[in-house]
Amino acid sequence: MTTLVMKFGGTSVANLDRIRRAAKRVGREVANGHNVIVIVSAMSGKTNELVGWVNETSPLYDAREYDAVVSSGENVTAGLMALTLQEMDIPARSWQGWQVPLKTNSAHAAARIEEIPTGNIDAKFAEGMKVAVVAGFQGISPEGRITTLGRGGSDTTAVAFAAAFGAVRCDIYTDVDGVYTTDPRICEKARKLDKIAFEEMLELASLGAKVLQTRSVELAMRFKVPLRVLSSFEEMSDTAGTIVCDEEEIMESNVVSGVAYSRDEAKMTLISVADRPGIAAAIFGPLAEAGVNVDMIVQNISEEGRTDMTFSCPTDQVARAEKAMEDAKAAGDINFRELVSDTNVAKVSVVGIGMRSHAGVAAKMFKALSDDGVNIKVITTSEIKTSVLIDRKYMELAVQALHDVFELEKS
Amino acid sequence: MTTLVMKFGGTSVANLDRIRRAAKRVGREVANGHNVIVIVSAMSGKTNELVGWVNETSPLYDAREYDAVVSSGENVTAGLMALTLQEMDIPARSWQGWQVPLKTNSAHAAARIEEIPTGNIDAKFAEGMKVAVVAGFQGISPEGRITTLGRGGSDTTAVAFAAAFGAVRCDIYTDVDGVYTTDPRICEKARKLDKIAFEEMLELASLGAKVLQTRSVELAMRFKVPLRVLSSFEEMSDTAGTIVCDEEEIMESNVVSGVAYSRDEAKMTLISVADRPGIAAAIFGPLAEAGVNVDMIVQNISEEGRTDMTFSCPTDQVARAEKAMEDAKAAGDINFRELVSDTNVAKVSVVGIGMRSHAGVAAKMFKALSDDGVNIKVITTSEIKTSVLIDRKYMELAVQALHDVFELEKS
Repeated sequence: MTTLVMKFGGTSVANLDRIRRAAKRVGREVANGHNVIVIVSAMSGKTNELVGWVNETSPLYDAREYDAVVSSGENVTAGLMALTLQEMDIPARSWQGWQVPLKTNSAHAAARIEEIPTGNIDAKFAEGMKVAVVAGFQGISPEGRITTLGRGGSDTTAVAFAAAFGAVRCDIYTDVDGVYTTDPRICEKARKLDKIAFEEMLELASLGAKVLQTRSVELAMRFKVPLRVLSSFEEMSDTAGTIVCDEEEIMESNVVSGVAYSRDEAKMTLISVADRPGIAAAIFGPLAEAGVNVDMIVQNISEEGRTDMTFSCPTDQVARAEKAMEDAKAAGDINFRELVSDTNVAKVSVVGIGMRSHAGVAAKMFKALSDDGVNIKVITTSEIKTSVLIDRKYMELAVQALHDVFELEKS
Repeated sequence: MTTLVMKFGGTSVANLDRIRRAAKRVGREVANGHNVIVIVSAMSGKTNELVGWVNETSPLYDAREYDAVVSSGENVTAGLMALTLQEMDIPARSWQGWQVPLKTNSAHAAARIEEIPTGNIDAKFAEGMKVAVVAGFQGISPEGRITTLGRGGSDTTAVAFAAAFGAVRCDIYTDVDGVYTTDPRICEKARKLDKIAFEEMLELASLGAKVLQTRSVELAMRFKVPLRVLSSFEEMSDTAGTIVCDEEEIMESNVVSGVAYSRDEAKMTLISVADRPGIAAAIFGPLAEAGVNVDMIVQNISEEGRTDMTFSCPTDQVARAEKAMEDAKAAGDINFRELVSDTNVAKVSVVGIGMRSHAGVAAKMFKALSDDGVNIKVITTSEIKTSVLIDRKYMELAVQALHDVFELEKS
C-alpha cells in the first residue's frame, strides 16, 4: 500500500463547501489505491483573527500562549475534514500535532520539526483507516506544550510527513495552478511548467514566486520527496499542476526555467572602504546582528588600499543597515568615506539547472537588457542563477524581454 | 497557600475587553493570597458556530471528531486569558484538558471525569506560577483522544478541579448575580439569597432556575466544595452572589428558600389500569426506554382491581409517551381503558431544607393556592420540596402567592 500526502491551504478549506470539494480529491486518491495523509491549514481568515486577538491582548506576547491560541484553527479544519470524509464512507480520523506526535524543539512560534514517529498513524492504517487528517503547522515541544512552525508551517508539515512515511508524493493544493516561468501578471506569455527541479524552485521561491515556502522545498530536496503544486479550484486530473522533483527526474531540462523578480530591493554602497583582511566580516557581521538580510554582495577591485563595497537588502531594512554601518564606523571597526543608498532598484533573475552545462546564458541576458536600454547596476551569479539589479522602472520591461529571449513561452 | 477556583462562562469572556475585566477579578484574588485555577468557557457564540459546522458536515457525526472540533473554542480563551494575566504581571499559563491531564471515560460528547492528577499544575505553582488557566468542558480519553463533558461541562470542570485541588471555594461567574427566591421576571419581590444548601439548589436547578447545572451541584455536594454564583458584570465584592454550601454551614435556614416553576409540563393519566404487582415497572420501563423523562408519579387508590396512574413529563415528550403506552398495550404488557393527556399544566414547587423539621408547609401552600382559587391537579412531596401541578394560566399567580405567604422577600 502506497502513501500519498495531500496538503490543503487556507483558501482550499475556507468553508464547508470547499472542504467537501477537497475531500472529493482525497476520495479520488483513496480510490486510486493510496493511504492518504491529509494536512490541513486553518479556514482562511481564522489564523489572522486569532493572531489579531493575541497581538491586541499582549503586544509582547508569551510565544507559548500564542502557539496554544493560533494552533486551534487547524484543529477545527482537521475535525471537519475527517467528518466530511466519513460522510463519504471513507474511514478517516483527525490528529492534532500532539497526538501524532509531531515532535519539535521549543522554539515557540518558529519551531523546527525533530521527529515524526509513524507508529500511531500506521497502527490505524493497519486497522483499515484510509485517511489520517492532520492539523498542520503545529507540534509538541519536549516540555509537552503546543508549538507552531511559523511561516510556511503547513507546507513544511506536509513535506515532513511525506518524508517520515515514505510517501510516493506530496501534493500541495493552493489557489494557483502551478509554477510559472514568470509572474503572469507581468508577462502574459508566462507558461505553467510541468516539472521543475528543487534547486530551481528554491531560487524562484526566494526571489518572489510565492507558491511554496522555501523551507518546505529545502526539506523536500533533502529527503527527495517529489512535490506537486496544484490548484484546488481546477478540474481533477493526474497531470495537473507542477511537479517539483530531483533534477535527475527531469529528462530534458531547459537551460533557463524561469524569470524571477523582486521589487523591494535596495542597493547600498560603502564608498572608499579601507581594504584589509577581515573587512568583509567587519561589515557584514554588524549587518547580520542588526537583522539585515543582505542578498547580493559585490566588491570592486581595490585601488590604493581602498575599495567600494556594494550590497543589496530589502527596502524596509535600509534605515537599520545605515545605522549599523554608522555605528561600526563610530566604533572604529570599519572606515568608509560615504554610504550611498539607492531604494529605486529591483532585482531580476534568470534561473535554470541547464545553466550549469550551457555557457553564454549571462551574456545573452545582458545583451537582451542592453538592447532594451536597461542599465545594469549590479550583477551576481550562482551555479543556476544570474541576477541583476536595475532601475525599478525597467523591471516589467526586463522580465518580458528575458522571457522572450529565452523563449520561455515554448515548452 | 490556599487554592481558589474561578469559572467564567461564555458571556463573561465574550470579547477581549470582557476577558480583561475577568482577569482583574482573578488578579484581586491573587492579591488576596490565593493560588487561582481559572476555568474558561469558549467566547460566547463560538461553540455554537463550531457545533453548527459539525452538524452541517455530518448530521450523524462521529462524536470523537465532534469533540476535537468543539473543544477548540475553550483553548482560544484559555490562551488569551493567560496572556491577559501576564500583561498584568501575574505569572500564568494555559492548560488544555490533555495537558493537565483531565482524564475522562470514552463517552465522547458526554464524558465523565475519572481523575484529575494534580502533579503537573502543582509543580508550576511550586515554581511561582500564580494562576493556572484551564480550558473547560474538555478532557482526554483512555485512548488519547479529546473528549468533551457535554451540557454544563465547564461548571462541572470547575467543581472537579476544586475537589481535586482541595480549593477553599469554587466561584462561578455568570450573567446573573446569584440565586433568587424565585424568578424576578414573574415575581418582582424576588430576593437574592446569600446562602443556599446544595440540596435546595439541586431542587431549584432541576425545576428551572437555570443558574447552575445539576451535575456540577451534585459533584460539589459530594465533595463538599462550597460554590459561589455571581455576576461578571457587577462591582467586585467579597459578599457578592450566592454561596451554595453544605446545610450545616447555614446557621438559620429558612423553612422555605424558594419557589420554583416549570412551564413545560404535561400531565398524563392512564385510566383504569389493571392493578397487579409489577404494573408500575410495566408502565415506566417502556417510558424510560422511549426516552421520556417522567417527573411526578401518582397512583390512585385501587378499586376493584383497577386503578388510575398519573404522571408528568415535559410537553415535547407527550407524543413519544403516548406511543410507548399504546405499543405496550398492543403487546399485552399493560391494560388500560384510556390515556388522557393534559398539556395545559405547569408545575410550581416550594423548596426548603427547613421543611424537614417544620410541619405544615404543605398545608400552608395548599391554603394559599385555594385562597386564590387555584385548583391543584397533582401533588408530590419530597423531604425538602412540595410540588403541585396546576392549570398553566394560574402559574404566575401561584408563584406570587406562595412567595408572599412564605414571606420570601424578607431575609
